[in-house]
Amino acid sequence: MAVNAGILGATGYAGNELVRLLSGHPDVELTYLSSESYKGSEVAAVYPALSGIIDMSYRPLDISAVADACDVVFIAMPNGEAMKMTPSLLSAGVKVVDLGADFRFKDYRLYEEWYGITHLSPDLCAEAVYGLTEINRDRIAGASLVANPGCYPTSVLLPVTALTRLGLIDPAGMVIDAKSGVSGSGRALSLASHYCETNDSITAYKVGSHRHTPEIETGILETTGCDCTVTFTPHLTPMTRGILSTVYAETEAKSDEEILSALAEFYKESRFVRLRPAGNYPSTKSVYGSNYCDIGLKVDRRTGRMVIVSVIDNLVKGAAGQAVQNMNLMLGLPEERGLAASPLYP
Amino acid sequence: MAVNAGILGATGYAGNELVRLLSGHPDVELTYLSSESYKGSEVAAVYPALSGIIDMSYRPLDISAVADACDVVFIAMPNGEAMKMTPSLLSAGVKVVDLGADFRFKDYRLYEEWYGITHLSPDLCAEAVYGLTEINRDRIAGASLVANPGCYPTSVLLPVTALTRLGLIDPAGMVIDAKSGVSGSGRALSLASHYCETNDSITAYKVGSHRHTPEIETGILETTGCDCTVTFTPHLTPMTRGILSTVYAETEAKSDEEILSALAEFYKESRFVRLRPAGNYPSTKSVYGSNYCDIGLKVDRRTGRMVIVSVIDNLVKGAAGQAVQNMNLMLGLPEERGLAASPLYP
Amino acid sequence: MAVNAGILGATGYAGNELVRLLSGHPDVELTYLSSESYKGSEVAAVYPALSGIIDMSYRPLDISAVADACDVVFIAMPNGEAMKMTPSLLSAGVKVVDLGADFRFKDYRLYEEWYGITHLSPDLCAEAVYGLTEINRDRIAGASLVANPGCYPTSVLLPVTALTRLGLIDPAGMVIDAKSGVSGSGRALSLASHYCETNDSITAYKVGSHRHTPEIETGILETTGCDCTVTFTPHLTPMTRGILSTVYAETEAKSDEEILSALAEFYKESRFVRLRPAGNYPSTKSVYGSNYCDIGLKVDRRTGRMVIVSVIDNLVKGAAGQAVQNMNLMLGLPEERGLAASPLYP
Amino acid sequence: MAVNAGILGATGYAGNELVRLLSGHPDVELTYLSSESYKGSEVAAVYPALSGIIDMSYRPLDISAVADACDVVFIAMPNGEAMKMTPSLLSAGVKVVDLGADFRFKDYRLYEEWYGITHLSPDLCAEAVYGLTEINRDRIAGASLVANPGCYPTSVLLPVTALTRLGLIDPAGMVIDAKSGVSGSGRALSLASHYCETNDSITAYKVGSHRHTPEIETGILETTGCDCTVTFTPHLTPMTRGILSTVYAETEAKSDEEILSALAEFYKESRFVRLRPAGNYPSTKSVYGSNYCDIGLKVDRRTGRMVIVSVIDNLVKGAAGQAVQNMNLMLGLPEERGLAASPLYP
Repeated sequence: MAVNAGILGATGYAGNELVRLLSGHPDVELTYLSSESYKGSEVAAVYPALSGIIDMSYRPLDISAVADACDVVFIAMPNGEAMKMTPSLLSAGVKVVDLGADFRFKDYRLYEEWYGITHLSPDLCAEAVYGLTEINRDRIAGASLVANPGCYPTSVLLPVTALTRLGLIDPAGMVIDAKSGVSGSGRALSLASHYCETNDSITAYKVGSHRHTPEIETGILETTGCDCTVTFTPHLTPMTRGILSTVYAETEAKSDEEILSALAEFYKESRFVRLRPAGNYPSTKSVYGSNYCDIGLKVDRRTGRMVIVSVIDNLVKGAAGQAVQNMNLMLGLPEERGLAASPLYP
Repeated sequence: MAVNAGILGATGYAGNELVRLLSGHPDVELTYLSSESYKGSEVAAVYPALSGIIDMSYRPLDISAVADACDVVFIAMPNGEAMKMTPSLLSAGVKVVDLGADFRFKDYRLYEEWYGITHLSPDLCAEAVYGLTEINRDRIAGASLVANPGCYPTSVLLPVTALTRLGLIDPAGMVIDAKSGVSGSGRALSLASHYCETNDSITAYKVGSHRHTPEIETGILETTGCDCTVTFTPHLTPMTRGILSTVYAETEAKSDEEILSALAEFYKESRFVRLRPAGNYPSTKSVYGSNYCDIGLKVDRRTGRMVIVSVIDNLVKGAAGQAVQNMNLMLGLPEERGLAASPLYP
Repeated sequence: MAVNAGILGATGYAGNELVRLLSGHPDVELTYLSSESYKGSEVAAVYPALSGIIDMSYRPLDISAVADACDVVFIAMPNGEAMKMTPSLLSAGVKVVDLGADFRFKDYRLYEEWYGITHLSPDLCAEAVYGLTEINRDRIAGASLVANPGCYPTSVLLPVTALTRLGLIDPAGMVIDAKSGVSGSGRALSLASHYCETNDSITAYKVGSHRHTPEIETGILETTGCDCTVTFTPHLTPMTRGILSTVYAETEAKSDEEILSALAEFYKESRFVRLRPAGNYPSTKSVYGSNYCDIGLKVDRRTGRMVIVSVIDNLVKGAAGQAVQNMNLMLGLPEERGLAASPLYP
Repeated sequence: MAVNAGILGATGYAGNELVRLLSGHPDVELTYLSSESYKGSEVAAVYPALSGIIDMSYRPLDISAVADACDVVFIAMPNGEAMKMTPSLLSAGVKVVDLGADFRFKDYRLYEEWYGITHLSPDLCAEAVYGLTEINRDRIAGASLVANPGCYPTSVLLPVTALTRLGLIDPAGMVIDAKSGVSGSGRALSLASHYCETNDSITAYKVGSHRHTPEIETGILETTGCDCTVTFTPHLTPMTRGILSTVYAETEAKSDEEILSALAEFYKESRFVRLRPAGNYPSTKSVYGSNYCDIGLKVDRRTGRMVIVSVIDNLVKGAAGQAVQNMNLMLGLPEERGLAASPLYP
């Protein structure tokens, strides 16, 4: 019997990616798509790519109607919105996966400091499970509320958590240089996402101040026990999808092959984490449109650093795909259900 | 029980797209992937995007081994190759879908004229069925040899055949202005496909001399009985996938809505043909990575022409996807089996 | 002694391109840059690319101050604005080059019909000279008001006017299939210019209804005497700069070489018109950042049509560059002054 | 009186950029363009963008003819070639600017180690001046042989040398994460520069092993006296031109404004180095087609690092532009002669 699922904020890029993935999920029926901007419109009118695939209209956001219609709800709305509606949804027995940042920090004050928003449901911060699927599987399986990780943190934490737990790197003082496609900024209009300003050009932004910095740091702390401070620099890259994070961490390890072998063992049950052989590094294209995270690495013996290259599709593994993966676990379904699509290459 | 399928020329873009599609096809098992350039290599070494998805190596081309291993074979090799091996394959009871041009012309002399290759199996030209799926379903279902249409002809013939049969346009003297992504030129290296020569630039090529011209003309003749000459101009466009063909044809029709309504009726059983409402035109992005052909049109009353805009993903509906669709029909499977993926947007 | 020049609407892409070109023009001093959106800001704050090159701030639009400060004024504002301020500027003895459509039609009713704006200075329509430089040099030289052609019409009229005058094509019933980069839509934000909606995708727009259609038709009428109706379809192409127009016209000519030879003779004094040898067609990249219009052509003998491929940089020859070229003529300067930059390739 | 200049290897991207720049240089006459691949061809046939701008043909490489024809020669050939011909050219009194790596290292053994080529003119290594123009002006002015810096090192050394000399960073152990457009790989065909493999994708390459690593290290040593080891990771980015280097260095400085102020003072006589105000970071687009190096920076107080963002056009400031700048100094011309073009934006 199908699970009834709702998507709140279904016309943003992450929301629409959820529509795309869930419309092909064999155990899910979409029952509620909300959009303030496009309420009343048919999906196919806003996203012609989905014409003939899904025959629904966007509805205004009515939480009690959502609770009636859905077993599980994905919230893909601006930060600060999920905290308002999640208590009602949970009370009504609805499971929630929030793709925003509202519940990503155990300590709500960290959220308030970096996001500048007063938290309205601070008690839920402790209850929510951070949805880094491959690391937190057990806790996600029993959760009613999952805070889906940010796109950058997902790309960083998958390799870094494993390598730290394996004792192969020291995450303290890591440099993280990340490059994202433009869809990471969403569908809202801005000069930075104007084609002519971005095409054939790369730039850095929010140097030393991006909100994913504390998420990465608390993510490392919670998954490895290491309390560390990192330098994180995001770059806007002329491509639609994809994040490539290059991580520089202190290491005493010597052999790339041995490190990769240990990492392979660590992730042997995780089909969405793939490793490149020594001397080989992934491109974002190799995960395009899929839920994979591909990782390559090399020890730079001259400087005693490990250089880790990690790529994901920011809208799939970095948002909607991981959210579906988490939903699968919450519902007792196989983790990869509905996520089998191969990357589109080229 | 799974059908055993082989792909000859599996490392070109069309061949690899077949690997991608068939590795996810529930009724097919891939049993033979040939590649001269990469024989002995694992798929994942050449296409890391398929790492963890398919665990096979490319083999050299050995036709008798192919015939032993396969129920159906896809040939994605340079023009002139399929004609050499198809007789043996057919004799061995293997069904063949050729993605090249060798069997697209009933009259082998047209092939010889435009391709400059002496045809070695002219008798098979008459036997082969032109695999324009939505138009030739019945004949494809009974065929042993299907000539998969070219990418440009597919984008043109789907709207033009229907509109001509409906009496809504006169195809004689049509102007076809087509724009293709770079993957249409394949994976072989050339200055034209060098990133720096193509990025941020558009150009016309093979003006008045592209080999898809006679394919379009004979396609129209065979599907509608209209013997016509057309002007066809392809353009190389800075995008990876996608073809947009703009077709200009004489018409006496007046109402866009009525034309679209008749076309919808014509294609009501064809889920991969989608129509845009009047005043709305498709982008190639809206079919990216999918087997859809999206069509929009408008009558320009000032000049008495219908302007038809048709888009496909050249590697899917324009090559591998349509080939799988044809295989499904040849094997008695549902036409859309293995082709359900939604377009990736954005 | 330098000419004092002003640019009204200096922060749009065409306006800023004028700033770029005129800041390097040896005979011009920029004395007034207006911008409503950015008044008070320094140029370098809005366009860091011009940092260290021009040290000015944008001012609000004050026509009497403009008239005091300038000998010549370029208007790069939305349609309907130039008609308001041009009478005052001309009365004050200021020469005007309008980059918008307000004065492109001798018959103001055509403007009103296609643009939906009541014309406030219909008498100036007759006085204004259409600034297709290579064709109207003499009249431009004596003009006080030049209506700078639209980007698409420039790319079309340069080959079509010449070939029609030479008796080599019949423009009646031409099909014009044009492809433009995104900067043609300007700097204003819209979903169509959002990077993710446009990257790796091509689409048609305003089929049968683009406002440059009557401009092309009247352009042909005025420069050749041929009263014709054309089909014009613009396409939005994933590139920043560039227009490629493919024109299909009836011809009785046979030899590409003879046609090219006649065209070369026609344009022998026009350094910004360049012809490709027979069998060779230009890409937009080959004129990137320059004032050139490159043309290739071929007679398709099978259909009796000439296929003409014409490329320009829409912001230079299609806007700011041609405007400077016209200013040079109006001021008695050499036509190419300030426009010598080679295309940037690749 | 014009200086006679030759370009050896004139059909590669760097060589052709020299043709573009020097064809517009008021004091230079091009007298020799060599190309093995295209000898006998006209420039306009290989690079139609230069049609009508330069009327020359490529010649085979004949060193004595070169010496006869030229006062100054630019060598833009594969590594290992310049060392063969430079002694003859210098003996003939010809000044040489080598755009390759042959003379970039004072210690030829470092060259041999990283490039795997036996050096044939090791004595010239000591004589050659490293052409980092803004830093080595005086020595370049008196040089007969200038080793033009690599593209990555140029982008790194301009900010790093100055900040180190100012005592504002410690270059030891720096992390340099660099992103380059595809033209940095040249015009030669390779899978990595195939449009479809690179478009809409980013990847890391030569991690821990790129040849520009020792050039950066020796560059820092020679310009600042600091003997340091750095981690350098280049990335291939989907754009034609541009390098953005993000440099992470230890610092005790606190105020971005004070650092920028000191840097501005350091570079006050260097018009091609431009600084962004605090909180603002450059994009590669803002230097597109120009000789500028734009720099932004921020101290990340949480980690005690300075994050420096430096951008150049790899073909101009990173190759041909800096080479012309060096030639100007060698000939006693104003440094910026022939390099005044503004960046093309957008």
